[in-house]
Amino acid sequence: MQDIVKAVHSWMIDAGEQIKESLNREDLLIETKSGRKDLVTEMDKATQDYLIDQIMAYDPAAKILGEENGLDQLADLSGRVFIIDPIDGTMNFVLEKENFCIMIAIYEEGKGRFGFVYNVMKDEFLWGGPEIGVFNNGKEIKAPKNIALSEGLVGLNSPMLIHNRHHETDISDRSLGIRMTGCAGVELIALVKGQRAAYVSHLAPWDYAPGGVLLETLGLKMANISGEPLSLSGRELFVGGTPQAFDELMELMHQ
Amino acid sequence: MQDIVKAVHSWMIDAGEQIKESLNREDLLIETKSGRKDLVTEMDKATQDYLIDQIMAYDPAAKILGEENGLDQLADLSGRVFIIDPIDGTMNFVLEKENFCIMIAIYEEGKGRFGFVYNVMKDEFLWGGPEIGVFNNGKEIKAPKNIALSEGLVGLNSPMLIHNRHHETDISDRSLGIRMTGCAGVELIALVKGQRAAYVSHLAPWDYAPGGVLLETLGLKMANISGEPLSLSGRELFVGGTPQAFDELMELMHQ
Repeated sequence: MQDIVKAVHSWMIDAGEQIKESLNREDLLIETKSGRKDLVTEMDKATQDYLIDQIMAYDPAAKILGEENGLDQLADLSGRVFIIDPIDGTMNFVLEKENFCIMIAIYEEGKGRFGFVYNVMKDEFLWGGPEIGVFNNGKEIKAPKNIALSEGLVGLNSPMLIHNRHHETDISDRSLGIRMTGCAGVELIALVKGQRAAYVSHLAPWDYAPGGVLLETLGLKMANISGEPLSLSGRELFVGGTPQAFDELMELMHQ
Repeated sequence: MQDIVKAVHSWMIDAGEQIKESLNREDLLIETKSGRKDLVTEMDKATQDYLIDQIMAYDPAAKILGEENGLDQLADLSGRVFIIDPIDGTMNFVLEKENFCIMIAIYEEGKGRFGFVYNVMKDEFLWGGPEIGVFNNGKEIKAPKNIALSEGLVGLNSPMLIHNRHHETDISDRSLGIRMTGCAGVELIALVKGQRAAYVSHLAPWDYAPGGVLLETLGLKMANISGEPLSLSGRELFVGGTPQAFDELMELMHQ
C-alpha cells in the first residue's frame, strides 16, 4: 500500500471505532439541517474534525471539502484536495445503527486520485484509484460485467419515483428491481461490486467523489443528468452505472 | 433451547452453508416463474427439499406449506404445519449474492408457535415465539420502541410508490424515509429490531409467517389491508408496524 493510502485507511478505521462506540450512547446529540429528514449528529461533526486533524498533520497544505462545519465550498480544485463525508447515511446511522459509510476522496489538480468508502458496521472497506486498482478489504476486485438495465437492480430514492421528473418509473420497469438503501456509499459499493446496473440520486460532491473514483477506475460511468462531468460543486443529479446501463439511462431520462 | 428450536436452527444453518457454497458456481440454473422479475433457482428448490427431508424425519405427521415444488396450498391448518421459504429474496441471491433469508414458521392448530428468519450472508439469525421470546443470534431482544410513522423508516416496494393505490406517497412523506431491500425477511428483521416503523408489501404466507411470529411475540402488529388477520392462504397486502405506526397506516391507507 502507498503511504497515503495506508495513512487514510488507518484514520478511517480509527474513526469507525469511535463511531461504533457512540452507537450505544443514549444521549447522542441529533439536530436537523435543511428539514426534518436532513439530520446531523455530533458524531458527524466530531468525525470530520478528527479526520481533518489527521489530514492537516499529514499534509498542512491540503485543502478540505467536507459535508459538515462550513467546509462545503471550495474556491478551486488546485493542489491536493481531500473530500470528506464523515458519516454518509446519517439517517441510517441514527435509526438503523448500520448501513452508513465513512468516505474520503483525494483529488490532485482536479483529478480523482484515490477513493475510500468504508461501510463501518459491515466491516467492508473499498479503496483504490487509477494508479493502483480497486480493493475490497485488501483483495483486488475486477470490473463488474457490463450488464444492461434489464439485467440488473437500480438504486433510486422515493421522491424520484413519486415525482417521476426524469422517467424514473420507466427505469423501474425496465430494470430487474429498485433498491433504496438511504446511503450513497452503500449504493456505490454495490455498483462497484456488480450488484447494481445503475444508481441515480441527487448528490453532493462528498457523496459521489469517493465512490466515483472507484467507479471510473473500473470503467463504470458517471455524469450529471446532462451527461457532463460532475462539477464537485453543489448538489447535482448523479447518474452512474455500467457503460451499457449508463447509456440507456441517458436515453430514457431524456426521452 | 427447546428440542424443536434446536433442530430447526441446525437444519437452517446447514442449508445456509449449502447456499453459501453455491454462490461461487457459474452454472447455477435460474428460471423465471410468473414473469422476468420472478426468479427461482435450483438452490431454492434444493434447499426446500433438504428442509422437508429434515422435517419429515423429525415429524412424519407434519404438514408443509412452501414456496417451491407445488407445495404452496394447504387444505387446512390443523395439526403442526411448517411454512417454508427456502430463499426469500431470490433476486438478491442471484444479483447481490447477499440480502436473502432462509425462513421457517411452525404453526400448531392455526396458531404461530415459532418463527425463524436467517439472513445467511450477514450471519444474522432471529428466532422465537410466544412461549420463549425472541432471540438474535442467541441473545434475547426486547420489544422495539413504539415509534410513530413520522419517527421511523418504512419498507415499501417500487410498484406501490409508482401506482399509489393505497396512499403510499403519503406514507413516504410522513415517514423519515423509504427503504427497499427486496427481501421480506430483511424487512421483518429490521422491524423486529426497531430499525423500521412499518413495512407494507404484497406477500405470500411463507414471506410473512416466520417474521410474523416474531413481530407478534414482541407486541408489534400485522394484518391485511382490511385490518383482518392474515389468512396464510394466497398473496395478501401485508401491513406491519409498531402499534402506533400500524394504526396510522390503517388510517392513511383508507383515507
